[in-house]
Amino acid sequence: MKNFNNSKLKIIPLGGLEQIGLNITAFEFEDSIIVVDCGLAFPEDDMLGIDLVIPDVTYLKNNIEKVKGFVITHGHEDHIGALPYILRDINVPIYATKLTVGIIERKLKEHNLLKNTKRKVVKHGQSINLGSFRIEFIKTNHSIADASALAIYSPAGTVIHTGDFKVDYTPVFGDAIDLQRFGEIGKKGVLALMCDSTNAERRGFTMSERTVGKTFDNIFSEHRNTRIIIATFASNVDRVQQIINSAYKYGRKVVVEGRSMVNIISTALELGYLNIPENTLIEIEQMKNYPDEQMVLITTGSQGESMAALSRMASDVHRKVSIKPGDTVIFSSNPIPGNEKAVSKVINELSMKGADVIFQDAHVSGHACQEEIKLIYSLVRPKYALPVHGEYRHRKAQAGIAESLGIPKDHIFMMHSGDVLELCNDSAEIVDQVQAGAILVDGLGVGDVGNIVLRDRQHLAEDGILIVVLTLEKYTNQVLAGPDIVSRGFVYVRESESLMDEAKHVVEHALDECMDRRISDWGKIKNIIKDSLSDFLWKKTKRNPMILPIIMEV
Amino acid sequence: MKNFNNSKLKIIPLGGLEQIGLNITAFEFEDSIIVVDCGLAFPEDDMLGIDLVIPDVTYLKNNIEKVKGFVITHGHEDHIGALPYILRDINVPIYATKLTVGIIERKLKEHNLLKNTKRKVVKHGQSINLGSFRIEFIKTNHSIADASALAIYSPAGTVIHTGDFKVDYTPVFGDAIDLQRFGEIGKKGVLALMCDSTNAERRGFTMSERTVGKTFDNIFSEHRNTRIIIATFASNVDRVQQIINSAYKYGRKVVVEGRSMVNIISTALELGYLNIPENTLIEIEQMKNYPDEQMVLITTGSQGESMAALSRMASDVHRKVSIKPGDTVIFSSNPIPGNEKAVSKVINELSMKGADVIFQDAHVSGHACQEEIKLIYSLVRPKYALPVHGEYRHRKAQAGIAESLGIPKDHIFMMHSGDVLELCNDSAEIVDQVQAGAILVDGLGVGDVGNIVLRDRQHLAEDGILIVVLTLEKYTNQVLAGPDIVSRGFVYVRESESLMDEAKHVVEHALDECMDRRISDWGKIKNIIKDSLSDFLWKKTKRNPMILPIIMEV
Repeated sequence: MKNFNNSKLKIIPLGGLEQIGLNITAFEFEDSIIVVDCGLAFPEDDMLGIDLVIPDVTYLKNNIEKVKGFVITHGHEDHIGALPYILRDINVPIYATKLTVGIIERKLKEHNLLKNTKRKVVKHGQSINLGSFRIEFIKTNHSIADASALAIYSPAGTVIHTGDFKVDYTPVFGDAIDLQRFGEIGKKGVLALMCDSTNAERRGFTMSERTVGKTFDNIFSEHRNTRIIIATFASNVDRVQQIINSAYKYGRKVVVEGRSMVNIISTALELGYLNIPENTLIEIEQMKNYPDEQMVLITTGSQGESMAALSRMASDVHRKVSIKPGDTVIFSSNPIPGNEKAVSKVINELSMKGADVIFQDAHVSGHACQEEIKLIYSLVRPKYALPVHGEYRHRKAQAGIAESLGIPKDHIFMMHSGDVLELCNDSAEIVDQVQAGAILVDGLGVGDVGNIVLRDRQHLAEDGILIVVLTLEKYTNQVLAGPDIVSRGFVYVRESESLMDEAKHVVEHALDECMDRRISDWGKIKNIIKDSLSDFLWKKTKRNPMILPIIMEV
Repeated sequence: MKNFNNSKLKIIPLGGLEQIGLNITAFEFEDSIIVVDCGLAFPEDDMLGIDLVIPDVTYLKNNIEKVKGFVITHGHEDHIGALPYILRDINVPIYATKLTVGIIERKLKEHNLLKNTKRKVVKHGQSINLGSFRIEFIKTNHSIADASALAIYSPAGTVIHTGDFKVDYTPVFGDAIDLQRFGEIGKKGVLALMCDSTNAERRGFTMSERTVGKTFDNIFSEHRNTRIIIATFASNVDRVQQIINSAYKYGRKVVVEGRSMVNIISTALELGYLNIPENTLIEIEQMKNYPDEQMVLITTGSQGESMAALSRMASDVHRKVSIKPGDTVIFSSNPIPGNEKAVSKVINELSMKGADVIFQDAHVSGHACQEEIKLIYSLVRPKYALPVHGEYRHRKAQAGIAESLGIPKDHIFMMHSGDVLELCNDSAEIVDQVQAGAILVDGLGVGDVGNIVLRDRQHLAEDGILIVVLTLEKYTNQVLAGPDIVSRGFVYVRESESLMDEAKHVVEHALDECMDRRISDWGKIKNIIKDSLSDFLWKKTKRNPMILPIIMEV
């Protein structure tokens, strides 16, 4: 081991800290880099018009010869969603468990990337060797099947990355989290623990997924005479399994609706992660052959997404299902922060259609609460703590937990995207900063919308735009046509004719002034028009539309 | 009583049902109208650039000679905020309890309306006569002092309007809700109950305001060595009282920060609703004379409002207070639906500055939960139920409670704004629809921003705008200048030069086509430019910016 005395491990989060969702972390040792997860994020409220956000992987591009592969903890969008974008530049193999690979493959197929991407299925308990690293996949529980924690062995020491996890002693499918293995590895000595912080502010323990099954049974037994519609996360296969179990028990057929739901369920079925009794699943077209009280519909839209199946049913634009008075609609989900109002809108629409909407006790989280986090820390007993996955407040809450368990404050790192943490058995410190963070995707454009464009969109959204056009004669600067004013998103022009007339006079006056003062520079003329019009409009309306003077010359 | 046999009472919600916040209801009997509350709402997410929303009171304007007065249940913005706007047209006296009048007067003063508005203070237990109506003010509890329910007596029967309420057996200031009086009036027979629905989905009982005081005592005793900053709702005077009590007990001085907080506290102090021990309240400028561990700061910003004091402290732009590592910051509030992300942003910023942020157990709701709603129904035993105050889902939840208590389904009315409910002892039915709903206020403009303008703002916000300008020769339609393309909020132009060049060619090509086809109609030319450019941009970018062709002629 002497050779490695001076060698250190580098951990570089390339996203996922400031921008929730962009989970991607590089681990570097000498000439090897492995990348854990590759997630995408959905735009924040101030990212107007942006479709999605992907991580900036410039650092990986610049070190492409070192990059050995992507190691993926589980199949959620915030851990795999950016792969189709990133693989174009970083075309290295992907390692994950079976269901995770299945979900990734479906995604790559949609992007026509399946052929050129190597994938390898790893089982829990197995290890893979990538350059200087060995990575062991450890069984955990989460709101998607086949989730893994990773033990990342390097010559500088072992890091445990929990992925997203909870402790479920009675999971619906497969085994409970492999706590023994966490303990065993911990006993041998762990350099650093990177643990999920999502629920670090919540006291206690997250309930077992199985408790939701009991709620379904209760609801099914109390609503024997109505149709039942259940919205949940497409990827929560265990949840779907429990709905199917209740449906079967109460003699109902099941229809699955919503593209992502159909996709994941067919992947899960193919790979053996779902167990559906024969003749239980039917096509949506067959619904009409069964009375309402023999139907369950499982659907997307639990987050109030306006294009998802449930929202379309609620607002009566779904082609095959309309909500009827008496329908029982269950939200088997909690709103993700930021979606509360959208969810409430759908609930209101469903209620107005006469549906009975239920959301109490029909969901449990997939993330560990405080007592579970303490359990993992106590099994692993890491030297250093690097809270991951969550807003700053959540990671900070985990830092508090780590401290309460005796980890010294200076062994806990609240990292930022791009930080390079160098560690070995004797020390850990942030030694560098690399380019990292968020890249905005709008339509086909990746990175061509930045702060200036967003600021303009914000301004346009607030108060609209006024365009002032005029044609000047070359050399003399005489006004040949205009000034004309056109506005959009400002006021009802028809009802504000006099305001627009006055505005035109203001511009004419400004132009006269320019002539008088012999100002011929277009930039100056434009500024004078802008300033005088802006003053005028602020006084008259207390609004501040974007003003865009355009001069043409003939 | 025979004369009135055919006379019926009309109840007309003019807002407050679809648009939360616009609480305003007209009660009409023969030639008398009284108006209960006059609230404003804050804009929904899709109301881009709108500052606030007020109710449409066309019906009152058209019946102005009947309108006898505004009867106000309590001093929250969603019950009094639109008064300054509505009083300009409907200048009738205002009736309310002392603190409510005090808050209204401060508001009217700001709008220069105090002189011309009649106000009358009513005590709990007192009644006022307004035309055919007698209105009795009944003591309730809420998150603002001096809240009232109203018993509205008309020749057609009695209506009880709870206002916003909870049942607090141990209030911080003044008496508990006058449950006896509810029972007494109920015993005599009540036609209709209009009851607060806000928490109708929540089981159990809302905790007493006093429990928050205990939490404060605990936090103060556990944080003796740090500065304490508490954010709460400005109008929750009892909450402020409890903070002051804890501060006094633990030997701290109190500073109040944030305009609305200072306003309400000074009104409450003047009118005797706050009890502050001498030398406890100090000016913000004096803070520097005291060590941190002797200071408490009470501030606005508990909803993450970006301009409020706490947000400014968190982002280091407050002129007098910066957050320091070790500060204890308490959110004595829950995020109002829609504000979750803004609140989280502030919590993250505070955490990054090293503050210890506490929000657990530091708040209770001001609204009745299910058991309290059942209590009121059981005391009042109304013939008809008209759930008010809440989203549709909440009002529907109350309808379910009413039904569970034995009120027949057809005696429960889920009203819409503008519905005219006519009732007497024998019947209740919706007989008409009047103009009602929301009017948008943007800057000084009231009602000049409507759907078209909002749709334009939405479009501009999504993908920006491209403006195509050209100057044509009169008669010949020869292009003299341009086409020039200017864009805002679309892409970084500098990085997309070739795209903009190509776009220009597309327009030139379209113009050639117009010349060839001898199209001289400007409308047609504009449409051809728009369509070809729009097709081109969609193919190239999968975006759909607003395209605005402007033609000038010389």
